[in-house]
Amino acid sequence: MAQVEIITIGDEILIGQIVDTNSAWMATQLNRAGFEIIQITTVHDYRDHILESLSMALQRADVVLFTGGIGPTNDDITKQTLCEFFDTKLIFDETVLLNIVNLFSTRPNFVINELTKAQAMVPENCTVIQNTLGTAPVTWFEKAGKIIVSMPGVPYEMKQMMSSEIIPRLKNQFQTPSLLHKTVQVYGYSESVLALKIADWESELPEDISLAYLPNYGIVKLRLSGLKDDMLELEFSMNQQIDKLSQLLGKAIVAYEDIPVEQFVGNLLKSKGLMVATAESCTGGNIARLFTSLPGSSEFYKGSVVAYGNDIKTKVLQVTPDSLGEFGAVSQTVVEQMALNVRKLLNSEVAIATSGIAGPTGGTIDKPVGTIWIAVCYANYVVSKEFRFGALREQNIQRTSQAAMLMLKEII
Amino acid sequence: MAQVEIITIGDEILIGQIVDTNSAWMATQLNRAGFEIIQITTVHDYRDHILESLSMALQRADVVLFTGGIGPTNDDITKQTLCEFFDTKLIFDETVLLNIVNLFSTRPNFVINELTKAQAMVPENCTVIQNTLGTAPVTWFEKAGKIIVSMPGVPYEMKQMMSSEIIPRLKNQFQTPSLLHKTVQVYGYSESVLALKIADWESELPEDISLAYLPNYGIVKLRLSGLKDDMLELEFSMNQQIDKLSQLLGKAIVAYEDIPVEQFVGNLLKSKGLMVATAESCTGGNIARLFTSLPGSSEFYKGSVVAYGNDIKTKVLQVTPDSLGEFGAVSQTVVEQMALNVRKLLNSEVAIATSGIAGPTGGTIDKPVGTIWIAVCYANYVVSKEFRFGALREQNIQRTSQAAMLMLKEII
Repeated sequence: MAQVEIITIGDEILIGQIVDTNSAWMATQLNRAGFEIIQITTVHDYRDHILESLSMALQRADVVLFTGGIGPTNDDITKQTLCEFFDTKLIFDETVLLNIVNLFSTRPNFVINELTKAQAMVPENCTVIQNTLGTAPVTWFEKAGKIIVSMPGVPYEMKQMMSSEIIPRLKNQFQTPSLLHKTVQVYGYSESVLALKIADWESELPEDISLAYLPNYGIVKLRLSGLKDDMLELEFSMNQQIDKLSQLLGKAIVAYEDIPVEQFVGNLLKSKGLMVATAESCTGGNIARLFTSLPGSSEFYKGSVVAYGNDIKTKVLQVTPDSLGEFGAVSQTVVEQMALNVRKLLNSEVAIATSGIAGPTGGTIDKPVGTIWIAVCYANYVVSKEFRFGALREQNIQRTSQAAMLMLKEII
Repeated sequence: MAQVEIITIGDEILIGQIVDTNSAWMATQLNRAGFEIIQITTVHDYRDHILESLSMALQRADVVLFTGGIGPTNDDITKQTLCEFFDTKLIFDETVLLNIVNLFSTRPNFVINELTKAQAMVPENCTVIQNTLGTAPVTWFEKAGKIIVSMPGVPYEMKQMMSSEIIPRLKNQFQTPSLLHKTVQVYGYSESVLALKIADWESELPEDISLAYLPNYGIVKLRLSGLKDDMLELEFSMNQQIDKLSQLLGKAIVAYEDIPVEQFVGNLLKSKGLMVATAESCTGGNIARLFTSLPGSSEFYKGSVVAYGNDIKTKVLQVTPDSLGEFGAVSQTVVEQMALNVRKLLNSEVAIATSGIAGPTGGTIDKPVGTIWIAVCYANYVVSKEFRFGALREQNIQRTSQAAMLMLKEII
């Protein structure tokens, strides 16, 4: 399989100002196209360091993809540095200037100044690929059977150029195998307990299928990866393994896709024609936020009463003051009332309610920080459960949200 | 300034399954502590590649920080590989097992099996730092004046260990310069318009103070950074510059600290003894989620009605069906009713309401995707405003939440 390295040039990542989301996107696309990413490197706009990282990458990889460092300002030096590496010089390319003029014709307020014109200076011995969304062209070099590409770091320009030009050209140049990933999400096991539980199955996996464990709050994702010339055969073999796993783990497998909990629970609600409402105390609107982050969530999500104070619990959610007084807000009685009453109030088929002590303060000896009650109901059928998650506020909020959505999945 | 490299080990980043957010967080923290990050490298769980990247990093940096690759399962080989590099062997460390036992004592359903126990096997010639949140300890090596640390890749474990142990220990070992950052948050200007507005001020900044622009949705953060032996003198000089900036920008400066909007608005509410309630349609609980992510938010936050469907707007928030029929849910009339009524319902002094078309679908010619109405009220005084943000759902949710909290700040 052809091997690719990504080199990202830019101070803003190294000082933590931005998160490098480009590399993950590129890796996903390249992987799907049948390339293996063997290293991602981020370096400053320093000549020596760029040269060193390129030399090292060429020792390991067939393809080196640079992003960033080709803007019009003085701090960007990638183009000059690549000229030096390939022992060539910058020449004026009229087609690049024409592309820039076209681009600016739709932006009345932009002026083509000296800095913009300088973008049309390109290394002499490379293939120039016009950037349809920005002023910096893509430059494509070949040397001793290896390919080096420099492209813009602006995410939407990079994505457009990768999809329409760079990946198709790379696929032309290299033989790419069939690569397949399948993910199974398991709930209720810690990573190490799960590993023991499936140890025999794991040891009997065919050689061409590899396994990775990816824990994420209460869920462990198991990712199978395979590489084969015959895609149908690989898919068949992988499905066989997943069937075996399914027999082994049963209901602990909560999803056979690599999508977030809110999405597979949302899909299930939609397919069953059910609407859900939520009454959130300790999760503070996080479940609402997760569901509504999905486009089209109005097809299964009614809304939420975020009942942070006790007065809302009684006034809006009709929790009886007696129950609050006798058992406290973090109790089975109260959380069940919240679920049943929010369902009626918002006129939905099913509902979720959470009440707990997210921390860092508010814990008692009986109910330490991390004590959480969750209730889910379907019509008047209600199920509730107590959890003890731990001391961290953010983790308590996330784990409670995940556990609550999975409890809902169980009853529908 | 001491130089640091970060090496991230894990297939999940190289196949694009997860975005590497750890490195940006680490870079920010290390930068603040007076260290320079010169390279971030991501490699597979391959012995040869880990060894090579470590050798290369030690040629450039004083400190090499590994994250990831130390879980209990077979695919994680960092510990063994580091043993090889440092020519040592794994030994059993009872304190690690004790730490794990303590950790598991609060989780009644978890069992300590042999994979978990194997986490207590650590390289012989390193300093072991207990991981208070997970089973894999931090291991700290020193060689020829350089420091190599291996820590977990689970974000909350990594953050806790970096903050409480690794950064303090690194600061002990290296001379770190007096580094001072001050951040001013500006609202209502685009980055380039702001740059022109403050161009003169920027060009007159003292040489030892540098400026960075950090745009974040509608806010541009201006970060002043300085490096000096005399901290008091630097602080005085920086405050002088901020005073000048303050005269230039006036009320466009919404905060003089680098804290999120919900925090400085929450602090203001607390200091004024005001409680806020929210009625959220298009933000879907995101404002509730932001406020309640802050410890102690119950001192200023009452709760929210996430009114995703129209029936909740009428039934719970008492929006008049006539207004919904005549103006639609995304309208001044409806959003003002939502704000005024949620304030009464939840018995708070002030309230926020949002209603808009987050997208990707649901837009019309009159009200395209990105059309948002926000209302804020203080007692019966209500202010509302229309925004047109754009086509991206997540960005619409975030920008609306930010704009709404800043509108509330204006009226209190």
